[in-house]
Amino acid sequence: MQLVLLSGGSGKRLWPLSNDSYSKQFLRLLPAPDGGEESMVQRVVRQIKSSALGADITIATGESQRDAISCQLGDTVGVVTEPERRDTFPAIALACLYLSKQKGCAADEPVVVMPSDPYIDDSYFDAIGRMVEAVKGYVANLVLMGIRPDYPSTKFGYIVPEAASGSNVADAMRVKRFTEKPTAEKAVELISLGALWNGGVFAFRLGYLLEIISKYVDCGHSFDDLRSCYSCFPKISFDYEVAEKADSVAVVPFAGVWKDLGTWNALSEVLGSSTIGKSTLDSASVNTHVVNRLGIPCLCIGVKNLVVAASPDGILVADKDCCESIKPYVERLCARPMFEERRWGTYKVLEHHNGGESNSDTLVKHIFLNAGKNISYQAHNHRSEVWTFIEGEGELMLDGEVTTVRRGDVVNIAVGQKHAVRAVTDLRFVEVQLGSPLIEEDIVRYEMSWPVNHG
Amino acid sequence: MQLVLLSGGSGKRLWPLSNDSYSKQFLRLLPAPDGGEESMVQRVVRQIKSSALGADITIATGESQRDAISCQLGDTVGVVTEPERRDTFPAIALACLYLSKQKGCAADEPVVVMPSDPYIDDSYFDAIGRMVEAVKGYVANLVLMGIRPDYPSTKFGYIVPEAASGSNVADAMRVKRFTEKPTAEKAVELISLGALWNGGVFAFRLGYLLEIISKYVDCGHSFDDLRSCYSCFPKISFDYEVAEKADSVAVVPFAGVWKDLGTWNALSEVLGSSTIGKSTLDSASVNTHVVNRLGIPCLCIGVKNLVVAASPDGILVADKDCCESIKPYVERLCARPMFEERRWGTYKVLEHHNGGESNSDTLVKHIFLNAGKNISYQAHNHRSEVWTFIEGEGELMLDGEVTTVRRGDVVNIAVGQKHAVRAVTDLRFVEVQLGSPLIEEDIVRYEMSWPVNHG
Repeated sequence: MQLVLLSGGSGKRLWPLSNDSYSKQFLRLLPAPDGGEESMVQRVVRQIKSSALGADITIATGESQRDAISCQLGDTVGVVTEPERRDTFPAIALACLYLSKQKGCAADEPVVVMPSDPYIDDSYFDAIGRMVEAVKGYVANLVLMGIRPDYPSTKFGYIVPEAASGSNVADAMRVKRFTEKPTAEKAVELISLGALWNGGVFAFRLGYLLEIISKYVDCGHSFDDLRSCYSCFPKISFDYEVAEKADSVAVVPFAGVWKDLGTWNALSEVLGSSTIGKSTLDSASVNTHVVNRLGIPCLCIGVKNLVVAASPDGILVADKDCCESIKPYVERLCARPMFEERRWGTYKVLEHHNGGESNSDTLVKHIFLNAGKNISYQAHNHRSEVWTFIEGEGELMLDGEVTTVRRGDVVNIAVGQKHAVRAVTDLRFVEVQLGSPLIEEDIVRYEMSWPVNHG
Repeated sequence: MQLVLLSGGSGKRLWPLSNDSYSKQFLRLLPAPDGGEESMVQRVVRQIKSSALGADITIATGESQRDAISCQLGDTVGVVTEPERRDTFPAIALACLYLSKQKGCAADEPVVVMPSDPYIDDSYFDAIGRMVEAVKGYVANLVLMGIRPDYPSTKFGYIVPEAASGSNVADAMRVKRFTEKPTAEKAVELISLGALWNGGVFAFRLGYLLEIISKYVDCGHSFDDLRSCYSCFPKISFDYEVAEKADSVAVVPFAGVWKDLGTWNALSEVLGSSTIGKSTLDSASVNTHVVNRLGIPCLCIGVKNLVVAASPDGILVADKDCCESIKPYVERLCARPMFEERRWGTYKVLEHHNGGESNSDTLVKHIFLNAGKNISYQAHNHRSEVWTFIEGEGELMLDGEVTTVRRGDVVNIAVGQKHAVRAVTDLRFVEVQLGSPLIEEDIVRYEMSWPVNHG
């Protein structure tokens, strides 16, 4: 069977720890079995691998998340990236084309699509197993997971089943209808009818979706060709395009632990500690969580019911009951990301200074390269850079010349000069960018290969 | 007449904006008449100069505050610095010796000593004028200011006057006794007796104090000699050593605006705006003040009755009613100051990174030099530095060689290498220090003179 994890998200509601290139599923904040911390997507992938499903995993995501996925999951999963952000139907369609064309999956192979970020217990994967069984047993063309509601939520869509037919409440039930996010009153009524939350988990045979996809593209073409006409797919959700139109839909109920860690309030409930990072809560502080990714201390005195989160992107101080409402305020900030996880390592911005004139932008970064990784060979047309190496050993390539660099070495990289660096051991350097203005896309990439290690 | 402002303070209670070299009186947070912001000491000095007192001002302080005073007040005040921190009696004694020996003041010149940080209205200086009149009129050897109490505070000492003798309640009254910080019950009783808060303002003839001083040192010596035996003075407050022993003490009442801006709660009441720096309060936030000296945004959502303060030293989130209790927590942080105001300009630390081994400390600073100022000629025995100039124009001296430096220039300063820089225009550079470990006192200073400007 094939499992497709949808990894999207704008990263606004867990600001300032998440940002556009670092969505909430990548935050390494959850307590991991090894005593460390893991991200939501790392947790889900670990759970899948330790389950009995035996599934191949493919992550469907956008180009901007490729580096974070590679950094957190390595080569253990397939990755298919949308050329542009559209909606869940096109994203799932592209993933199915990838499974068919690139992985050579057969038309009757069961596919399960699920989010990459739910906080769940292992019984979730038992429910997925039952969904796969229902697909294999031709119970329906499309099988959904229905989350047993805790309370009459107005945030989720509901799935209304036919009256339970089987003797086992865990069995698949025919779906009578879908209901969009209801009012609180309507939600109470839906729950009394046995309705379940739509958890965004879908199971089907690959061939079933390929048939729907063929309405928009000719599935005879190669995957690369199909990917290049991604804009042929309508901007529509999978729920609208597939689930609501399907004439044969079943739902498998799930009643285990299931949390949407979409807000700081929800996330704080599953953190391993009330403080992460350099943080102090005084004895008068109550029901407060602090996550501090800055190198400076955070001190909370006499506060109640707060989430305090700090990163190079900014500082949030929010009442836990108001965390839902941060999104529009964060959207107005619209700053560049101040830290990112890349395939080669991480960086954080220490300062962005603007002298007030054109040609006066300065960006100071702390860059960390994992041993064995390298930054690609590139040049910039609008900025010069000064690198001061502060830790580890690396190999620098500058206009074709390779030298060894260590703590204390300083490199001036002029506008237009080709440069790359490879970490021999874990490597850190401070980069001062001087630009006019700072354009992130100001990169020309070149082919190169590293000489045999002479370090 | 001579006015001595006592400028001390450990800077703990207004952390993280104040620190050991930048006490609360230097925080530029108060709304100034020109629409900008001024510090407590700038406000007091401005008020004195616009008053009718016609006083010469001398600041009595510690060596660590000399740069901040010079930066904020320029050459308009005299400065006398203690060789070591003792208490208020030695500090005032040294200032009096300075007035007598260095400034040549006569023994019958009236001297008024006051704190450098009270938040007061202009009528405060009328009261000081009446204190000076009382000294001149031989009403008493020592005249104190008594602040008319607002409430039965347990934080202040009280001055109990004899029953008012004059017809005018603003007249000087004989002091019956002093009372230390009382219980709340005792405070109510004291107020019913007409007691006043001891505001730490003292007026006397210079000769009166010189006589007391001569118990400890021989006033016949030069000021420099007297300063070098500063440790001869006992560690005792002026209240204990002088006021409580004096047999002729009067008090002049003051009933105008008088605030001790010693806590964030008190300070927030006089700020010109609820947010200073990059800060957003949502519409659900109530009675909250944010002061953000970091370059990144701070967002407050649904919070109530808070002070949020952020600087390169750290982040404070405190309930306004608990601000009194931050001091012990701040003392435990005991980090190096992360920003300072110096006679030549300012710096802030962008990052302090430690690789975990000896010889692996790295400090990244943003340094700002005011036009015309220079950093003294120096060398370091335990650290190298890399300077990247990002704004303005300067003259660099490196082992005796002078060159012009501008945006984009990079200078490597090796261990032991002599260096200085002078700002021709306002000048900024990023400094990366690599040390083993970073010792702030790792400075050897050299004499030098700048060649005639050839820039």
